[in-house]
Amino acid sequence: MTSPLRIGAVGLGRLGRFHAETVAKHLPHTELAAVCSVVPDELASAKNHFPNASGYADYTEMLNTECLDAVVLTSPSALHCAQLLQAAEAGLHVFTEKPLGITGEECQNVVQQVSAHPDLTIMVGFMRRYDPSYLEVKTRLDAGDIGRPILFRSYSVDPETCIDGALAYLPHSAGQFLDMAVHDIDLARWVLQSEPRMITAAGGCYAHPEFAAHDDGDNVAAFMQFKNETMVFLLAGRTAPHGYQVETEIIGTKATLRVGMTPQRNLVEILDAHGVRKLCSQGFLERFEQAYIAELAAFVQCIRKGKPAEVTVNDGLRATEIALAAQQAFRDRSSSSEPA
Amino acid sequence: MTSPLRIGAVGLGRLGRFHAETVAKHLPHTELAAVCSVVPDELASAKNHFPNASGYADYTEMLNTECLDAVVLTSPSALHCAQLLQAAEAGLHVFTEKPLGITGEECQNVVQQVSAHPDLTIMVGFMRRYDPSYLEVKTRLDAGDIGRPILFRSYSVDPETCIDGALAYLPHSAGQFLDMAVHDIDLARWVLQSEPRMITAAGGCYAHPEFAAHDDGDNVAAFMQFKNETMVFLLAGRTAPHGYQVETEIIGTKATLRVGMTPQRNLVEILDAHGVRKLCSQGFLERFEQAYIAELAAFVQCIRKGKPAEVTVNDGLRATEIALAAQQAFRDRSSSSEPA
Amino acid sequence: MTSPLRIGAVGLGRLGRFHAETVAKHLPHTELAAVCSVVPDELASAKNHFPNASGYADYTEMLNTECLDAVVLTSPSALHCAQLLQAAEAGLHVFTEKPLGITGEECQNVVQQVSAHPDLTIMVGFMRRYDPSYLEVKTRLDAGDIGRPILFRSYSVDPETCIDGALAYLPHSAGQFLDMAVHDIDLARWVLQSEPRMITAAGGCYAHPEFAAHDDGDNVAAFMQFKNETMVFLLAGRTAPHGYQVETEIIGTKATLRVGMTPQRNLVEILDAHGVRKLCSQGFLERFEQAYIAELAAFVQCIRKGKPAEVTVNDGLRATEIALAAQQAFRDRSSSSEPA
Amino acid sequence: MTSPLRIGAVGLGRLGRFHAETVAKHLPHTELAAVCSVVPDELASAKNHFPNASGYADYTEMLNTECLDAVVLTSPSALHCAQLLQAAEAGLHVFTEKPLGITGEECQNVVQQVSAHPDLTIMVGFMRRYDPSYLEVKTRLDAGDIGRPILFRSYSVDPETCIDGALAYLPHSAGQFLDMAVHDIDLARWVLQSEPRMITAAGGCYAHPEFAAHDDGDNVAAFMQFKNETMVFLLAGRTAPHGYQVETEIIGTKATLRVGMTPQRNLVEILDAHGVRKLCSQGFLERFEQAYIAELAAFVQCIRKGKPAEVTVNDGLRATEIALAAQQAFRDRSSSSEPA
Repeated sequence: MTSPLRIGAVGLGRLGRFHAETVAKHLPHTELAAVCSVVPDELASAKNHFPNASGYADYTEMLNTECLDAVVLTSPSALHCAQLLQAAEAGLHVFTEKPLGITGEECQNVVQQVSAHPDLTIMVGFMRRYDPSYLEVKTRLDAGDIGRPILFRSYSVDPETCIDGALAYLPHSAGQFLDMAVHDIDLARWVLQSEPRMITAAGGCYAHPEFAAHDDGDNVAAFMQFKNETMVFLLAGRTAPHGYQVETEIIGTKATLRVGMTPQRNLVEILDAHGVRKLCSQGFLERFEQAYIAELAAFVQCIRKGKPAEVTVNDGLRATEIALAAQQAFRDRSSSSEPA
Repeated sequence: MTSPLRIGAVGLGRLGRFHAETVAKHLPHTELAAVCSVVPDELASAKNHFPNASGYADYTEMLNTECLDAVVLTSPSALHCAQLLQAAEAGLHVFTEKPLGITGEECQNVVQQVSAHPDLTIMVGFMRRYDPSYLEVKTRLDAGDIGRPILFRSYSVDPETCIDGALAYLPHSAGQFLDMAVHDIDLARWVLQSEPRMITAAGGCYAHPEFAAHDDGDNVAAFMQFKNETMVFLLAGRTAPHGYQVETEIIGTKATLRVGMTPQRNLVEILDAHGVRKLCSQGFLERFEQAYIAELAAFVQCIRKGKPAEVTVNDGLRATEIALAAQQAFRDRSSSSEPA
Repeated sequence: MTSPLRIGAVGLGRLGRFHAETVAKHLPHTELAAVCSVVPDELASAKNHFPNASGYADYTEMLNTECLDAVVLTSPSALHCAQLLQAAEAGLHVFTEKPLGITGEECQNVVQQVSAHPDLTIMVGFMRRYDPSYLEVKTRLDAGDIGRPILFRSYSVDPETCIDGALAYLPHSAGQFLDMAVHDIDLARWVLQSEPRMITAAGGCYAHPEFAAHDDGDNVAAFMQFKNETMVFLLAGRTAPHGYQVETEIIGTKATLRVGMTPQRNLVEILDAHGVRKLCSQGFLERFEQAYIAELAAFVQCIRKGKPAEVTVNDGLRATEIALAAQQAFRDRSSSSEPA
Repeated sequence: MTSPLRIGAVGLGRLGRFHAETVAKHLPHTELAAVCSVVPDELASAKNHFPNASGYADYTEMLNTECLDAVVLTSPSALHCAQLLQAAEAGLHVFTEKPLGITGEECQNVVQQVSAHPDLTIMVGFMRRYDPSYLEVKTRLDAGDIGRPILFRSYSVDPETCIDGALAYLPHSAGQFLDMAVHDIDLARWVLQSEPRMITAAGGCYAHPEFAAHDDGDNVAAFMQFKNETMVFLLAGRTAPHGYQVETEIIGTKATLRVGMTPQRNLVEILDAHGVRKLCSQGFLERFEQAYIAELAAFVQCIRKGKPAEVTVNDGLRATEIALAAQQAFRDRSSSSEPA
């Protein structure tokens, strides 16, 4: 038997810690060899929780000291590209959280550099592709079940209860489309196998004027048409009163598929003075827990089998480019005079 | 063209008034000739609202004075049989609200007496048979779509908000099974085309001890098996916190049909801090408004075409008998010692 | 008591005949005095069905001959404006089906002319405003229940089973936005109390290339932003495989309201080899039957009380103007070169 | 750090193999030390799949040879009690699949014998207690959210597609109530914290006469009343056309809770010629995969912390006794003459 894969987990916030836990507990023949964070509390907590993993505050030091096979990057978005390239040059496989990067240029550079390492598995974390519901949608589209796709509509709206985090993150944000809608953009490209040829956007600050100072909105939407004629409508927002609204609808000439119209957290229904109701998921970890585990399992499988990643840096590049184009369309639109 | 049917509406409570309105407004070639109630306020209000109708406090006087073609009885249940027979003997067609009567004997007497008037349309008001959802269920069962029926389950639970009315009515009540479940019993007989061969019942006073003094419960249930082997489970209650829960499920070997699992009052869905929810119908008029109109339209059609009623006095007799048998089973059971 | 309102029904196709039936049967103190159609079969059938109504093949002759109080116009869209003005000049109240007209100019002319007849009730048939579900939405928005509206999304998609009728109508069609989305446009204006300031559109011929010859699509969508910042997304189409998909969603900062996401035809649910499912409404009369009756009842009420119409010619004008602007945006867009 | 728990998995059918996989992959500090089956193919396949585990065809030999800490019994129901006692006497912790046993006597014997081993964790596999939906129900009941429970209704109906397996198992079956409804019985006891005082049953062979030869039905139901007055209605069957129908409803005086009314397999909804529909789970592993993992994790946790099991042999005893009482009631009833 081969020796276990030695993995370093970089970034130990909520999702980073979850990824570390997945590596440590759920992946066969995989070892959480190192954890890395510049946040002292997060690092201390992780070292305590994963006694077999070494702890690092410095990424370069980790790469130099540990004999790792792969890294899992859950660091701030602005660091993804540089850390990815550093690891690849050290011969490590890389899983990076979305987005691949926050400018088109740095993503293009990654795509180019990575082409020199065909032996490495370099994967971007679009975990929805590993969710059973979205997998069924993909299978049905590929099978032709819905006929020709007419409209792809997808929402990613965070619960209002998380607004403080979103506001705190504003100085680092590259905008709602890159922060939130990048998943929907990846889904659209993945299931439609096409690229946008027209992008319009609008939105505003409906509840939180703070976003305006960053030339952004608390809710923004983009309307696109892809080269295969499919229309795409995306909504990204921060103010859902009921929970984490990630829903997708694909209207085709033969059938319509919907995912998550009611973001129910489980199979319980309550009948009381408020009516007949379901309670909702409150965030990405609650909704996509199994998908996050499945994507890392897929990453490890690809490494073991020497296969390229299922979600590539080119997917990361395109998602970032389209998100930024939508963000630009939003900014152009919002400064325009009244056309009608 | 024939002259309009002259109809007298008897009993002018909430449903009686609605029936009068239907006769006056929604039935072609029909005339609300008279209204009758022993409740002075209700009578006065109706006379004011229907200026073309004569008003009577006395049923016999109405029959003797007016030249009526038919009566619609929405009087107290204990009066149905006597009023029905009086009208039939006067040569009038009769529509009576459920139940046909409150003892098996008086119902049997009606069935016998009515057989002497084959020319008259005598109809019992099981309006659910005229509801589009229940009609679809009936059509599908008759077509064999569900295969062999295994379990027929039906609930009739009034909203807790109506409890004061139910408590006030207690002295006149013949029990939950006759007051509430009689509709479910009729549905079971109608769609299954079979009769019970075993009846068990249970229940209790879960919220309102007042029912115990009348040897009844605020929620009661009956478990039956019909001669065609189908199991039947009925729940009748008074304490629904969310609305008027009338739901029916028929599990068959090839398909299951459900009606009204969520008693939604319209097509609106609300997503807010309470989750994703639908608000509910709050009573029989809200849920079955169109069915109440349709049953009177059917009654008038039968009269015009000289056809026997679609819901017969025998249906009324059987529903009462089965409801009373369930009530008796409940009373026997509740006094029994603990069997296990 | 006043004498009954004498009404003439003009246009006797499916909906026109239904309006005639409503006048004849469901409206108190109202008389269907005349029916008018240039289609001999429809006229003959209506005369037979409504023996008390006079029949006319010529609209002007009807106006000159009959002593009418009002007309209900269900004629082809291109005739609405002229027939409306002719009736108004004759001193008649007018109910016209949507759209008010097919060009902005003729609608503006109507608005101007009609201002000379403040005593007349001139109403446009946006029946959704009389649907209980949409009424609840309007009430909740006006009460502030949903906070500030962020996105108004509304679909009107006819079932694929009706495609032959849509194709036959193509030579007379002013485009999908005017034929189908005009209802959604009216809803948006009605509930948002605002007007669009930006309109984009896209679409295509996904199943039926015949629409391209008329510079139209079988499915088209418009993305707007209203002056109050609310985003509006509308889809109009002809290819729904499952039924008549009229759904509306209004996402607000405090709540989201949805109407008709599942266009269920009744309260029946089926569990069989196809899963757990609901069957769907197949057309506007099935979905909006009660709303069509209610709008005519409101029209008659306004006449009796000498009140202006609840849905005005200005509403009709604006809906047509916005629909035509969307249609133009679609045509401009579809001829543009690939922007991305 | 303590050394890993060494666990032997006994019985390697579909669920047994899944339990072995859970021990091997998902439980921290746990080792699948041995696998045991009398079915040569299953044993060979498991040995191949789990190379670190020793394989045994003989249970006693496994106990004597391996130095185990615990066993997981997924053997035929008739063997549970004997194997449990043998392991307990050898000082091993035991997790046994439901039912604890197939006669009241053998279960009572286990309860008595096990009391001599308070240091051992002996747990019965009622996995629904570890399902997030049922856990929410339990929490809400304990918090008093639903008020006083009126009716507990629970269905366990296998898909018709699995009927061959059920028929093949008939010679070993102790009846539908023990095979299927034992989970619902445990749920009722768990959430109601009460025991039945009345049990009635009925049922029949609606699709598969083969069950009659074993004095059983393909669908059976029991109606109970518990000592706390709550009514309980259970349905156990084998003929669901659409999937694995495990649903539970608890009607209370303040709220009703429902679990799994639509046994949807994921969050996808399909709109096509069949209507608007969700596809369904097809079996217990698909529906309860996470619960099966969670119950073994809880078992291991109890062992490590030296705590008694959360689901005890007394729970197993009572579930078996009640199931057998219902089975007896069914058999008595079905032979009775027609009571009504």
